[in-house]
Amino acid sequence: MGMWVGMGRKARRSYGFDEIALVPGSLTINPDDVDTSCEIGGIKFAIPIMASSMDGVVDVNFAISLGKIGGVAVLHLEGVSTRYEDPAEAVERIVNADVTEVTKVIQDVYSKPIKKDLVSRRIDELKKAKVPAVVSCNPQVAGEFGPIAREAGCDIFIVQSTVITVRHESSKYKSLDLTRFCKDMKIPVLLGNCVDYQVALELMETGCQGIFVGIGPGTACTSRGVLGIGVPQITATCDAAAARDFYYKRTGKYFSIITDGGMATGGDICKAFAAGADAVMLGNAFARSKEAPGKGYHWGMAMPHPNLPRGTRIRVGTSGSLQEILFGPAQTDDGTQNLMGALATSMGNLGAHNIKEMQLVRMIIAPSIQTEGKVYQTAQRVGMRK
Amino acid sequence: MGMWVGMGRKARRSYGFDEIALVPGSLTINPDDVDTSCEIGGIKFAIPIMASSMDGVVDVNFAISLGKIGGVAVLHLEGVSTRYEDPAEAVERIVNADVTEVTKVIQDVYSKPIKKDLVSRRIDELKKAKVPAVVSCNPQVAGEFGPIAREAGCDIFIVQSTVITVRHESSKYKSLDLTRFCKDMKIPVLLGNCVDYQVALELMETGCQGIFVGIGPGTACTSRGVLGIGVPQITATCDAAAARDFYYKRTGKYFSIITDGGMATGGDICKAFAAGADAVMLGNAFARSKEAPGKGYHWGMAMPHPNLPRGTRIRVGTSGSLQEILFGPAQTDDGTQNLMGALATSMGNLGAHNIKEMQLVRMIIAPSIQTEGKVYQTAQRVGMRK
Amino acid sequence: MGMWVGMGRKARRSYGFDEIALVPGSLTINPDDVDTSCEIGGIKFAIPIMASSMDGVVDVNFAISLGKIGGVAVLHLEGVSTRYEDPAEAVERIVNADVTEVTKVIQDVYSKPIKKDLVSRRIDELKKAKVPAVVSCNPQVAGEFGPIAREAGCDIFIVQSTVITVRHESSKYKSLDLTRFCKDMKIPVLLGNCVDYQVALELMETGCQGIFVGIGPGTACTSRGVLGIGVPQITATCDAAAARDFYYKRTGKYFSIITDGGMATGGDICKAFAAGADAVMLGNAFARSKEAPGKGYHWGMAMPHPNLPRGTRIRVGTSGSLQEILFGPAQTDDGTQNLMGALATSMGNLGAHNIKEMQLVRMIIAPSIQTEGKVYQTAQRVGMRK
Amino acid sequence: MGMWVGMGRKARRSYGFDEIALVPGSLTINPDDVDTSCEIGGIKFAIPIMASSMDGVVDVNFAISLGKIGGVAVLHLEGVSTRYEDPAEAVERIVNADVTEVTKVIQDVYSKPIKKDLVSRRIDELKKAKVPAVVSCNPQVAGEFGPIAREAGCDIFIVQSTVITVRHESSKYKSLDLTRFCKDMKIPVLLGNCVDYQVALELMETGCQGIFVGIGPGTACTSRGVLGIGVPQITATCDAAAARDFYYKRTGKYFSIITDGGMATGGDICKAFAAGADAVMLGNAFARSKEAPGKGYHWGMAMPHPNLPRGTRIRVGTSGSLQEILFGPAQTDDGTQNLMGALATSMGNLGAHNIKEMQLVRMIIAPSIQTEGKVYQTAQRVGMRK
Repeated sequence: MGMWVGMGRKARRSYGFDEIALVPGSLTINPDDVDTSCEIGGIKFAIPIMASSMDGVVDVNFAISLGKIGGVAVLHLEGVSTRYEDPAEAVERIVNADVTEVTKVIQDVYSKPIKKDLVSRRIDELKKAKVPAVVSCNPQVAGEFGPIAREAGCDIFIVQSTVITVRHESSKYKSLDLTRFCKDMKIPVLLGNCVDYQVALELMETGCQGIFVGIGPGTACTSRGVLGIGVPQITATCDAAAARDFYYKRTGKYFSIITDGGMATGGDICKAFAAGADAVMLGNAFARSKEAPGKGYHWGMAMPHPNLPRGTRIRVGTSGSLQEILFGPAQTDDGTQNLMGALATSMGNLGAHNIKEMQLVRMIIAPSIQTEGKVYQTAQRVGMRK
Repeated sequence: MGMWVGMGRKARRSYGFDEIALVPGSLTINPDDVDTSCEIGGIKFAIPIMASSMDGVVDVNFAISLGKIGGVAVLHLEGVSTRYEDPAEAVERIVNADVTEVTKVIQDVYSKPIKKDLVSRRIDELKKAKVPAVVSCNPQVAGEFGPIAREAGCDIFIVQSTVITVRHESSKYKSLDLTRFCKDMKIPVLLGNCVDYQVALELMETGCQGIFVGIGPGTACTSRGVLGIGVPQITATCDAAAARDFYYKRTGKYFSIITDGGMATGGDICKAFAAGADAVMLGNAFARSKEAPGKGYHWGMAMPHPNLPRGTRIRVGTSGSLQEILFGPAQTDDGTQNLMGALATSMGNLGAHNIKEMQLVRMIIAPSIQTEGKVYQTAQRVGMRK
Repeated sequence: MGMWVGMGRKARRSYGFDEIALVPGSLTINPDDVDTSCEIGGIKFAIPIMASSMDGVVDVNFAISLGKIGGVAVLHLEGVSTRYEDPAEAVERIVNADVTEVTKVIQDVYSKPIKKDLVSRRIDELKKAKVPAVVSCNPQVAGEFGPIAREAGCDIFIVQSTVITVRHESSKYKSLDLTRFCKDMKIPVLLGNCVDYQVALELMETGCQGIFVGIGPGTACTSRGVLGIGVPQITATCDAAAARDFYYKRTGKYFSIITDGGMATGGDICKAFAAGADAVMLGNAFARSKEAPGKGYHWGMAMPHPNLPRGTRIRVGTSGSLQEILFGPAQTDDGTQNLMGALATSMGNLGAHNIKEMQLVRMIIAPSIQTEGKVYQTAQRVGMRK
Repeated sequence: MGMWVGMGRKARRSYGFDEIALVPGSLTINPDDVDTSCEIGGIKFAIPIMASSMDGVVDVNFAISLGKIGGVAVLHLEGVSTRYEDPAEAVERIVNADVTEVTKVIQDVYSKPIKKDLVSRRIDELKKAKVPAVVSCNPQVAGEFGPIAREAGCDIFIVQSTVITVRHESSKYKSLDLTRFCKDMKIPVLLGNCVDYQVALELMETGCQGIFVGIGPGTACTSRGVLGIGVPQITATCDAAAARDFYYKRTGKYFSIITDGGMATGGDICKAFAAGADAVMLGNAFARSKEAPGKGYHWGMAMPHPNLPRGTRIRVGTSGSLQEILFGPAQTDDGTQNLMGALATSMGNLGAHNIKEMQLVRMIIAPSIQTEGKVYQTAQRVGMRK
């Protein structure tokens, strides 16, 4: 399990969405009969597709809209929602920024301090609308915001940074003790991101309920270019799922593996489940909805970094309502609409009654086809970088 | 026979047309001396290249033209021919639709109900012209249309959906019993599509006479993008051919393996035969003929799906008559004309006296060359998506 | 030595120029001290780079110019030189043809019959200029033209078709007996093209002096697209060279392996020698010379085929004199000029004193770099197809 | 460790930056706590990134600027600085040359003879500014310039050619005895370039203090296209590092491995260290600085070759000050600014306390992602070739 890349150095071959395809077997099922729901942190969701905690994608209104139809959007506690009374204004500044200045504008927008009372208020707004309140922040501030969020009625709390580990060294600040944090929070905690079997096992030991998988795969993320770090999502998801299955066998406790980032089409989502995901997290797809605050733009949350901005403001355009994007009818044929319909149809063709069976379908390594959809999409990505 | 794509998960490497080339051996033959005919369902065809049951490619007139020169075109019983007295009018609406509205127009055109008397009439028109009547439909309606077609004098009946299996579960409708259907039909039945050795064997057990191989490879099909499903055609054809050969050895009964989709040039067709095909099925190539109803456009039959349209209206242009496309003289050098001449020349160069010997020629894995033909073609596909 | 491409079917991985790079070792040599000469058919040539028998590249004047500086150009006996008193006029018609009509114009130009007296006259012109007379034709007419050429004083005779084999079947004409032909000709005979170890051995048994390696690799050749046939040149050359070395060990007779086609730059030429070639044959590079009759255009000799034209008229432009292209000074840095300087420099860096040592340098499989040169070149190929 | 590329010929698969990614493990570190310094030739540098000895990148002023902030720029003793009293004027001629004439202009600029007193004077200027004086030249002139440089107070002397070996044959001139040269120089000597374990060991035996790794990988270098020679940098660096580690184990003497060329982004730099480099050498990145003499252009030092120019004048544009390029704040997100910040952040995410630990992080083989950054960059390279 590894090839020589140089004398004395082996590296393992890893695989991404484009290199994999799914293979039907001896059974097919009417798509109307498959069960596409999932359970995360003890809560059952009709839609196993979460919306990324990015300010161009999720604000309180968006989270309410998605929650009402059975999905879940994650609100970032370090985003504009907790820095501005009126976050829409801040988002507008970013969206309207000239391409040459966008990095600076974003850095400026995010230099405004976070207001703790806005943390409580946003969660309260979600709870009042009777949708699950799921929020996230970085490890450095989790100790501070976690208790506030819990008090405000938060249902699931997510601690998320580019790379998370149980062991973190710093001479400047005290590292967050993840095990203690999970215990103290009492509500379900999810951790991310990781891409490794061993790290996944260590994170599971902290007492969290699930982990996010994905370092450097998203379109709005340039970790691999800037830092050289990144693992393709099929391999990363398989590895994390193997850790989950091993831990389950040993302890009887089942974690959620949430594949986060890099999925462009319904086909990619289907492949993530086939690789072992319990749920997926998307940015691009939801950024295209009419309900998204970014009006067809989104940007990574590592982008505001004052010294080393990573990520890009991507223009994806607006293509339909949340309802259309998730349940159709699809107006286009490029795999970016009716994602739930695509998932159900794929599961039916592959003979998977539910997500757990979908995790077992056969994969094949297939040279990526340059379908028009992909070409068009790539063209869009490059051309629309505004 | 498999590589690790993640911990505990292996996947097999599969191959498509572009990665394979054919290797001449110690014998060459004058192309005029090779036999390119094939036999499907007990009928001998001079041309082993079938025309896909797509409404932009095949109508009754086209099927008659192709039948007259020794080939066979498949008429779709759920297409415009059985929904409209004058199908040309419906085709025209699709062809003239603006690119932004084409999906909706197609959905609308196909919302008109099928008329059973038109099923009989179309078959009758074919029989009167003294060409083989070969028709197709989906499993859901095969039980209804099969007997009508047989009564009308149909020669070969095809049951075809994106993915076909012997076992199909549905709580909404009764699944078609393929074994009983084949037995009841009495005339030869072909089934498709499949991409797997085991599934191919199970389909052979139903009593059918041949199977179509290909899920997700065609240019007008976006199954892989939308559903994540698809197997490259060289591997799929080899596997199905291995099932055929195994079944033949065990039972003495020989099935036809028909590679369906993904072939862009004469070279691709030659490779399909080398991989084990008894015949191939093309859409693109025939859509370019003057005789095609789509006037240079075609679209997949999964495209009308009201909720999850898959497939794209492709503009391929019109490049010559059926005669020119199949037998030349080629006006162009890009491998899309004189397909039969190309097949014969390739067989001569490879020392194959007939299709059965062509199935045994040596293949090599060769990095795909970006010939101008391919580049031009890709450019066309993307640019001409109108 | 082979990978499964499907059940029961293995195929060997083959390699082309772009996937290979050469690796320097412990010795370097001043390029002025390396010997780049070669010997073919008992004649020593200062330049181991032959010019392809294409009408856009070689006419009598070109062959004289190249011969005078130590190289050799092959005159095609079925080209315009033997069909027209004034071949320049025929070439001009092709060069000036509109892109939409070029295939037809070429077919028409080559429909004019060959005049036997012109065969003798062209060879005579070469001999009078005191350069080697090297000519070629297809196997079908070799029996007729061979003796005429020999009588006229031809030095080396080449029998060349897309694919050549010792065994050829035809019900229409008597196949050429290569062994008898080589014996009767008395002058050195070269045969081609082949890509296989076994076929190379069989061709060596005929009594010929060398073979051409290459099926489907050239830029003006679309064999792989039209016929599916083609083997990348590194693998083909290695295999033919292995046959040469085996035959030499067994019989003491040394053949010439001439890699023909697919080389775009000095780097590709160096790689061909490293793979085992004794000489190389180029079309593109020489077509760019001021001395070439095609004025910056060339086209394959399979292109005139009345029914199945293969090949493309390529515009390469005119970039310098023969002297500049072979010996510099290079006006450009893209590897298409000063080919002999590049070869000598490469041999020096790799520590090869002569071509035979160059055949032993270390190769590495390296992912192809999209150097600007390559990108530019591809752009040219596609864009300049006029 | 090798694949068959043809009968009897094996070649090893090698890897470049784009095919590799780095994988985080169980530990992360605050980037502020990692040590990014390196030691070369006994001198400690805060910045392990050297500037290439190219005339568009380094002149005396640039070397002073970079030296002042802890880095090191190499001044080429055969460049314009030692040929012209006012080198800026010569650089200006090259920068302003039309694209069609640039090769000729460069050849002309470099035809002016080197003045020995300028060699001393340039080193003197560096020493007076109290920055390390690091200079380079080709082996042919090292015997002449080495002593002059040492007398002038040079700190580190570099002997560098496209390919360097201990054994060099020439009938025209006496080859440089590297062992004697290193011994006579007394000051630290670095040698390059090489790409091979065995050659690296032989170079270490000469008594030098470090070697440069990289043949043919840079953007301004076309060695692979022109000469067919080149080894991707990950494999080349791993091999050289393995030689260093072996030699250290045997002798206790530690060499510096400096990866030279081919790195486009911070991510590539991180990967070079992960492959085993002690330092890296860049051209492109520094050419973009306001302090670079080339005003946004650079060109390879093999380009002036009168007969076989290799390399290209590349326009990279000017994107920021040296300070911004190395330490940020980054104005862009494409990985070309704040390189030291990227290195520290990557090391923190990967849990590497210092460069020596960074040499041990896990690598994975990952299909290259076409991030927008890369696409944009490639577009720039091709489009901006002026």
